Amino acid sequence: MARPRIVALFTDFGTTDVYAGVVRGLIRSMAPESEVIDVTHGIPAGDRHAAAFMLLSAVPFFPRGSIHLCVVDPGVGTERRIVAVRASGQTFVAPDNGVLAPVVEALGGAADVRYLTNERLQRPRRSATFHGRDVMAPVVAHLVRGIDFAQVGEAADGIVDLPGFAPEIGDGSVTGRVLHVDRFGNLVTNLLPGELAGPPGSWDLRVGDEPIERWGTTFGDVASGQSVVVTGSVGFLEVAVRDGNAADVLSARAGTRVTATRKAT
Amino acid sequence: MARPRIVALFTDFGTTDVYAGVVRGLIRSMAPESEVIDVTHGIPAGDRHAAAFMLLSAVPFFPRGSIHLCVVDPGVGTERRIVAVRASGQTFVAPDNGVLAPVVEALGGAADVRYLTNERLQRPRRSATFHGRDVMAPVVAHLVRGIDFAQVGEAADGIVDLPGFAPEIGDGSVTGRVLHVDRFGNLVTNLLPGELAGPPGSWDLRVGDEPIERWGTTFGDVASGQSVVVTGSVGFLEVAVRDGNAADVLSARAGTRVTATRKAT
Amino acid sequence: MARPRIVALFTDFGTTDVYAGVVRGLIRSMAPESEVIDVTHGIPAGDRHAAAFMLLSAVPFFPRGSIHLCVVDPGVGTERRIVAVRASGQTFVAPDNGVLAPVVEALGGAADVRYLTNERLQRPRRSATFHGRDVMAPVVAHLVRGIDFAQVGEAADGIVDLPGFAPEIGDGSVTGRVLHVDRFGNLVTNLLPGELAGPPGSWDLRVGDEPIERWGTTFGDVASGQSVVVTGSVGFLEVAVRDGNAADVLSARAGTRVTATRKAT
Repeated sequence: MARPRIVALFTDFGTTDVYAGVVRGLIRSMAPESEVIDVTHGIPAGDRHAAAFMLLSAVPFFPRGSIHLCVVDPGVGTERRIVAVRASGQTFVAPDNGVLAPVVEALGGAADVRYLTNERLQRPRRSATFHGRDVMAPVVAHLVRGIDFAQVGEAADGIVDLPGFAPEIGDGSVTGRVLHVDRFGNLVTNLLPGELAGPPGSWDLRVGDEPIERWGTTFGDVASGQSVVVTGSVGFLEVAVRDGNAADVLSARAGTRVTATRKAT
Repeated sequence: MARPRIVALFTDFGTTDVYAGVVRGLIRSMAPESEVIDVTHGIPAGDRHAAAFMLLSAVPFFPRGSIHLCVVDPGVGTERRIVAVRASGQTFVAPDNGVLAPVVEALGGAADVRYLTNERLQRPRRSATFHGRDVMAPVVAHLVRGIDFAQVGEAADGIVDLPGFAPEIGDGSVTGRVLHVDRFGNLVTNLLPGELAGPPGSWDLRVGDEPIERWGTTFGDVASGQSVVVTGSVGFLEVAVRDGNAADVLSARAGTRVTATRKAT
Repeated sequence: MARPRIVALFTDFGTTDVYAGVVRGLIRSMAPESEVIDVTHGIPAGDRHAAAFMLLSAVPFFPRGSIHLCVVDPGVGTERRIVAVRASGQTFVAPDNGVLAPVVEALGGAADVRYLTNERLQRPRRSATFHGRDVMAPVVAHLVRGIDFAQVGEAADGIVDLPGFAPEIGDGSVTGRVLHVDRFGNLVTNLLPGELAGPPGSWDLRVGDEPIERWGTTFGDVASGQSVVVTGSVGFLEVAVRDGNAADVLSARAGTRVTATRKAT
């Protein structure tokens, strides 16, 4: 199908306020052929690292031609710009604050980047606080309806980067952090297995100051109550405690330092 | 399109219980041509003022012909009645407890009000505690399927009012309250800018006993940590703290008194 | 319609993580004719009794031919198996850990049970931690697309039971527990009215050590602040406090003992 129809929403709106429902209603009103999927509205408020992680986690499971709208916008009401990006058959709309950088890089880089400067596609009266509704959602609806991508606005040279998303790779050590604590208390780190040369057992892993007891392939590899590091469902190293809550046991949360150190041989 | 197809849900069911999913499944089973949009299931339990605010916030962004089902029903199991209302091309179904009054007034008043007395449209065995499922959802499904509005039940003279939703306008002062605290800690008040004559700078605004530092047009108008009042995305005055949580900083919550006082000149 | 199209999701994923959105996106990508309904993602993590209750509560309100995917999977990464079950025109996919036992029994027993052993229907690289995405969702999509049920894998003799879901029926007493505390603080028990012979008034009911004050048919039967037991919307006995939160007032939560004792005559 040439025209994108699926719109995937990634926001920090929560589900108590009507913000997400309004964005959804507006897109459906303007583009009845759209299908809107709420991937998450639970990104911690203003947390660009969590937003970037959630895009990385979910985008690969959507068909080519999907439009991903990410509204994590702590800069609303300031000079930040809003971008639309095409990469590997996927389209993204988001504030230009770094949230898109990791997923666009994972897709091989941006094929086209535009600022949302064409105000004729947007709501005529723009509120000061809700550009998800007044700017981004209408542009998404126009894209679903089939406007040419270049119509959204002027071409841009690229998108803003997201410092701190990748770990620091040193000599015999890799220093990263907890990107996200999931509902089960599992700690998703920003370390990739490929960044640790040699067999996993040749590295020590610490979350904060706490050593992780085992490297495994599944949670079932350790005894109840033990901590284990596995390759998680998105590809990052992930720390769990079997039958327990790793965040509680290890006193960790988003941002906690994670260190891998090569063992002396 | 003559026949309504979009059904927008506004409830205090939360999303942990299955109540919202059951209402959705039932409407879709009875009326497969319906499209059900979960606007919010996070209205605080039994909070009619929050429900009224959320309807006001979202209904204008849905196409004419939508049906809005609002189940905030602290009186289930008592003598309260259930109404269906038509206003400005929109249809509403809700307990007759005031939740619809502000949005219906904003739409120019009710064109038709009916009590849901036609039990043949409802589930044959009505539970004592879940009229959203047993009474309201089936009637909504029948409306989607195209029954005449008058079939839902006997005509009513009007709907119940919602005391305390509008502020008290005095001589040189307006006294209202916080209608809603959103996920970001912003305080939505029940004051409208038009209720304060003259330039905004000629009024002092307090939330509880705390003076608000600035009148602005966007959050970016103040320094980090400062409080600001802006016209929010629904049109009410809204108090925020830049890069902060206004509810925490100002010790405010839903119901907190908000006072605007004209400055001495 | 011969082919199932509605997919109802019951998980403990929460709505903060992207897990639910990914499952939804994947099913929609593989089977565009599907309609995915999020019944709940708020089952307490790993709580099989709550999952079983929620399936019992919601399945009867979905049309024949629906597919119910229940991912409450504390044993992911261990030897537990995954099953597909057909019962009374409904199809279920879930880990074989007991979550399906009560709803399948309520539907009159399983007509066909299969283990998901046909890996060609699944994602080629199975993660260690997310079989909802890698195993169950793709099989659900294939079922929507119309594969024969027997293709999902080898026939099984039956499904795993769920101990502790039904109460213990003694001589003049029935001992059960709180299955679920809903958003309003109402306590859903695992006691059925039919298990208490004679008029309700001939039994005393206690939640923990707290006696319940009245048997009623609706919450409106008691004065504000009084506790009442009614038959809830799913058919189980349910304890409420009028205008209050029964869980708080009675210090109860999921798992709290509930005892019915026949009065001396």
